[in-house]
Amino acid sequence: MKLIRFGQPDQEKPGVIIDGTRYDVSAHFVDYDEKFFAHGGLEQLAELLRNVEPGHLPVVPDAVRLGSPVARPSKIVCVGLNYADHARETGAATPAEPILFMKSTTALVGPNDHIVIPRNSVKTDWEVELAVVIGRKASYVEEADALSYVAGYALHNDVSEREFQIERGGTWDKGKGCDTFAPIGPWLATPDEIRDVDNLRLWLTVNGQQMQDGTTAEFIFRIPRLISYISQFMTLLPGDVISTGTPAGVGLGLKPPVYLQPDDVVELGIDGLGTSRQTVKAYGQD
Amino acid sequence: MKLIRFGQPDQEKPGVIIDGTRYDVSAHFVDYDEKFFAHGGLEQLAELLRNVEPGHLPVVPDAVRLGSPVARPSKIVCVGLNYADHARETGAATPAEPILFMKSTTALVGPNDHIVIPRNSVKTDWEVELAVVIGRKASYVEEADALSYVAGYALHNDVSEREFQIERGGTWDKGKGCDTFAPIGPWLATPDEIRDVDNLRLWLTVNGQQMQDGTTAEFIFRIPRLISYISQFMTLLPGDVISTGTPAGVGLGLKPPVYLQPDDVVELGIDGLGTSRQTVKAYGQD
Repeated sequence: MKLIRFGQPDQEKPGVIIDGTRYDVSAHFVDYDEKFFAHGGLEQLAELLRNVEPGHLPVVPDAVRLGSPVARPSKIVCVGLNYADHARETGAATPAEPILFMKSTTALVGPNDHIVIPRNSVKTDWEVELAVVIGRKASYVEEADALSYVAGYALHNDVSEREFQIERGGTWDKGKGCDTFAPIGPWLATPDEIRDVDNLRLWLTVNGQQMQDGTTAEFIFRIPRLISYISQFMTLLPGDVISTGTPAGVGLGLKPPVYLQPDDVVELGIDGLGTSRQTVKAYGQD
Repeated sequence: MKLIRFGQPDQEKPGVIIDGTRYDVSAHFVDYDEKFFAHGGLEQLAELLRNVEPGHLPVVPDAVRLGSPVARPSKIVCVGLNYADHARETGAATPAEPILFMKSTTALVGPNDHIVIPRNSVKTDWEVELAVVIGRKASYVEEADALSYVAGYALHNDVSEREFQIERGGTWDKGKGCDTFAPIGPWLATPDEIRDVDNLRLWLTVNGQQMQDGTTAEFIFRIPRLISYISQFMTLLPGDVISTGTPAGVGLGLKPPVYLQPDDVVELGIDGLGTSRQTVKAYGQD
C-alpha cells in the first residue's frame, strides 16, 4: 500500500494511492498517527482495500496538496554519515557505530512544500534520505526481529544548516530542526511494496543539476542494525521516523561548498518511494 | 497556580494543588497538553479556581501517583553546560553561546517514578535542572518578549548516561533519552508563583548525601536568552519543555566519578517547585 496525507497544513486527511490515483479514506480513518499504527491501522486499511472497490472511494484531485504521509511523530531520529562516500566528502572517519541526532518534529512538511532558509542562514544544504516509519513500540529490539517493527518507507530531504549544525557549538541538532527542514513523502510505502530496501537508487537535483546519485546498497549500517541500535537508547513509538543517512553529493562536500539560494528548486527521489520537489524561499518571502 | 497530573502512567488526569491539598479538575479539562496551553487553558483554569470553592472539587489522595505535570510534549530541548561551575567540573570551556541537545520525549516519567538504568549502562548520572514549559508557539522570539511565552516552571532530573552521551560517537542525544531519564514534577508552577526565577536554590542528594547545591543566579544564559536563542533554530510549541542545565556536583565531575547503582535513592528540589524522589532500578528489576 501507498499511504498519503492530503489537504492544507495541520488539516491533512488520510488517503491511499492505487494505480496512480489518489483516494480519500478519511471516512474510515482519522489520521496516520501513533494511534493508527499502534492499533492495527495498517491491517484495517488493507482489509478495507480488499473489500472496497477503489471506485467507491472518493478521488482526491492531483492538484490537492500532499502533507507528510505520517502525522507528526513523537520523534525523528536521524543517522549521520551512514554512506561511506558521504563520510569521506565531509572529511569524517567512517563511524564505528551509528551516529544519531534528532530533528525537531516541527520541521516536518509535505513533500512539495517550500524549504524556507532560516533567518541568518547562509549554509542551508540538502540530503536525500530513506526514512523508515516504525509500526510498533520498539525497545531493545534484536536485529533479527527488527524489520517486523517497520510500518513502511518514505522519501525524506534531511535539510541541514551547516553553520548551525557544525559551527555553533554543541550537538548537530541546531542545524537539523528548523521549520520546513523535513519534507517527507509523497507516500509511505508498506514493506511489501519494496523488493529490496538495501538496493534502492536515490538521487537529488538542484535546478535540474544532478547533485546526489547513490544507492542504499552502500549503507554502512543497514536498517535492521539501525532499528536495533537506536532501540537500545530510547523507545521507538508507532509512527516514529528514522532517517537513514545520505549518500555523497551534499553542498557541504563540494569544493567550494554550494548552498541553497532563494528560488532554487530541489528535486529528489528513491526507487519505489516517488519523487518530491521543493522550491527554496528566504524567510519571510512569499 | 500549581498544576499536577495524577493517576497511572499514560492515564494521568489534570489536577491542581491548593494550600497543600490536591484537587481533581478532570471534569473541566482533558489534559495539560499542547491543546490546553494553545487554547487558553491556563486562563480557563484560573477562571475556574476563581469561581469554584476548592471544597467543591474532588480531592486527590496523597497516595495517588503523580505523573509529569505536562503531557508528553512535541519536544524536550536541553541546554548543556549552563552553569559555570558545572562546565569547569566536566573540563569544558564556558560556552560562547548555548549548547543544545534533545531528549527523546519517551524518557518522560513522573517525579517519584523509578529511574531505570539502561541495559549495558555503567555510567548513569543525575542532573537537577529547572525546566521551563512553553505556553504559546514561539518562533524568532525577542529576548525582551521571551518570558511572555512561559507557561510555567518545573523540577527536572536530566538523567544522563555518560558513556552513551560522550563515548559512543555523534551527539549527546544517545545518553539523554533513555526511558525514565526525564522525571519532571511534582508540579508545574505558573510564573506568578515564582518570585525571582534567577535566584532559586536547587539541590540534589543521593542516598541522603548532598551532591548538588546551586542557584539559578549562576546561569550563564538566563531564561529569556535561552527561549529567544532556541526559537531561532526551531519553533517551540505550547507544552514544549526547555531544560536549563545543571549546576556542579554531577557524578561525572567527582574524582573518581560516581554513578547510580540499583536501589540508590535520588532526591532533588528547587525553591518553589517542590521536591521529587526516584529509586534507581536495574533494567528488568521490579
